[in-house]
Amino acid sequence: MAAELSLGSAASKPQTENGVSDSISSVIPGWFSEISPMWPGEAHSLKVEKVLFQGKSDYQDVLVFQSSTYGKVLVLDGVIQLTERDECAYQEMITHLPLCSIPNPKKVLVIGGGDGGVLREVARHLSVEQIDICEIDKMVVDVSKEFFPRVAIGYEDPRVTLHVGDGVAFLKAVPEGTYDAIIVDSSDPIGPAQELFEKPFFASVAKALRPGGVVCTQAESIWLHMHIIEDIVTNCRQIFKGSVNYAWTTVPTYPSGVIGFMLCSTEGPTVDFKHPVNSVEVNGIDTAKSPLKFYNSEIHAAAFCLPSFAKKIIDSK
Amino acid sequence: MAAELSLGSAASKPQTENGVSDSISSVIPGWFSEISPMWPGEAHSLKVEKVLFQGKSDYQDVLVFQSSTYGKVLVLDGVIQLTERDECAYQEMITHLPLCSIPNPKKVLVIGGGDGGVLREVARHLSVEQIDICEIDKMVVDVSKEFFPRVAIGYEDPRVTLHVGDGVAFLKAVPEGTYDAIIVDSSDPIGPAQELFEKPFFASVAKALRPGGVVCTQAESIWLHMHIIEDIVTNCRQIFKGSVNYAWTTVPTYPSGVIGFMLCSTEGPTVDFKHPVNSVEVNGIDTAKSPLKFYNSEIHAAAFCLPSFAKKIIDSK
Repeated sequence: MAAELSLGSAASKPQTENGVSDSISSVIPGWFSEISPMWPGEAHSLKVEKVLFQGKSDYQDVLVFQSSTYGKVLVLDGVIQLTERDECAYQEMITHLPLCSIPNPKKVLVIGGGDGGVLREVARHLSVEQIDICEIDKMVVDVSKEFFPRVAIGYEDPRVTLHVGDGVAFLKAVPEGTYDAIIVDSSDPIGPAQELFEKPFFASVAKALRPGGVVCTQAESIWLHMHIIEDIVTNCRQIFKGSVNYAWTTVPTYPSGVIGFMLCSTEGPTVDFKHPVNSVEVNGIDTAKSPLKFYNSEIHAAAFCLPSFAKKIIDSK
Repeated sequence: MAAELSLGSAASKPQTENGVSDSISSVIPGWFSEISPMWPGEAHSLKVEKVLFQGKSDYQDVLVFQSSTYGKVLVLDGVIQLTERDECAYQEMITHLPLCSIPNPKKVLVIGGGDGGVLREVARHLSVEQIDICEIDKMVVDVSKEFFPRVAIGYEDPRVTLHVGDGVAFLKAVPEGTYDAIIVDSSDPIGPAQELFEKPFFASVAKALRPGGVVCTQAESIWLHMHIIEDIVTNCRQIFKGSVNYAWTTVPTYPSGVIGFMLCSTEGPTVDFKHPVNSVEVNGIDTAKSPLKFYNSEIHAAAFCLPSFAKKIIDSK
């Protein structure tokens, strides 16, 4: 079930540039409200200055608006994917948690992440020689390039190759042991990303990684989705024979204000995710043009420290 | 300026038990929306099952409602103070960060915190002999005792003495060097809590603490209020001659999903806030009746690891 798309339609009704806003319903007039069965009984709302794009791709509803205090906002199926104000937290953490945990990552695959923000962060790693991205929805790529140039800048790196298609099928065709790291930057497990949370997908990921290779997947909120997280952890412990750890970070515009990551490694050289081997402050990471806003080695280690209620459940799996 | 009190007033208009809901304005019908000049352009909304209490004390508007997914909710001047679902994070962190950082705390003062949740947490420390609380608003105490028994249970500890009055005046009358620890559990610096963020108040706190005593104050969100935090840090570095550190944690129903704490110690025995001397897992903390839900020694240390954008500003003060 897709999330409900909710934008005000009363006095201060926002208009797209070509005047199309018919599908927008009313919650707080002039505000975007994120209402979803994934987080019943609560909604985060952002004041809309202007709707910049509204479209329907083969996979989902795509909306871009200028908010009054969070910059431009990308929304897929009614759910906020990124805002210019806080995207740094998500993009930097989902990328550098895995890539700073192994020495000299060379081949990296991104599944999803069509906005290009993860690519931007992967490209900071000087050891990386090849960056493949498989995004199912071309409209997300195009919209990001048009409205979020500081995010889509990731596509400008010559090491990047974009594959538009299904991540599950793409992975199946990858020769065994190809990648040092795979980053799964998916939306919630309702809609096109559903398969990316299931066991056969994790098995394909493990196969595509070299021994001691690492994966980092978006893994929901400990405050809202412990039941989903339990399943992910259980699946990952069965599939990945190296390390399996849960980490999390703050992203104000995501439901409950936090988002988690599942970090796993395949059998092979040991990966200690909690103690990064690459330090942004010291070696191999390019911050010359644009400094990192969020990630550092301290916050890397801290991301693995969980509140007792979550630790108890995750450790028991 | 007080925050705007916003509750739906359309078809599913919630009613207090005595039918009084005249002052409630319409945002999302049947939902409570937290709209404030402290976080312009965004609002978090919770679905209301039933308004349980609505009153106006000498200091602020007081509202209690049953939400559909966060349990009962306490709102002061339109701003969510606690929900049953996530209050553990705030109460445990604001209490155990300071009290686990010094050996054998004996005398503790709580300023604000009328709901009693901090008292509940302080009372877990077996070394504590005296717990004073100074809350300005008696209505908050009474409402908590009536609607939040698992929070107000803190008042049942025989070591607790409640002083209803102004925290600033109370502190001035305290003999020099009285307390081992002071916890300032205040609302935002708009309204009755304003003085609790100013330099003369911090000077009174420092005077009331013994040498090497500690204070922990509510210190806003790094995502929303860096300018306020900068001022607090600057003030604290001038007043407190021991350690001065900023920590933070996740609280989903607070704006931006996080809240910070300013931890300071007076000149005297060194306090290393980042490495707790008391461990919940090992010594001196009573978790027999009700286990801690959130706090542990790992999350204590992690709370001091800041994102780069915040670390840069705070370290420069």
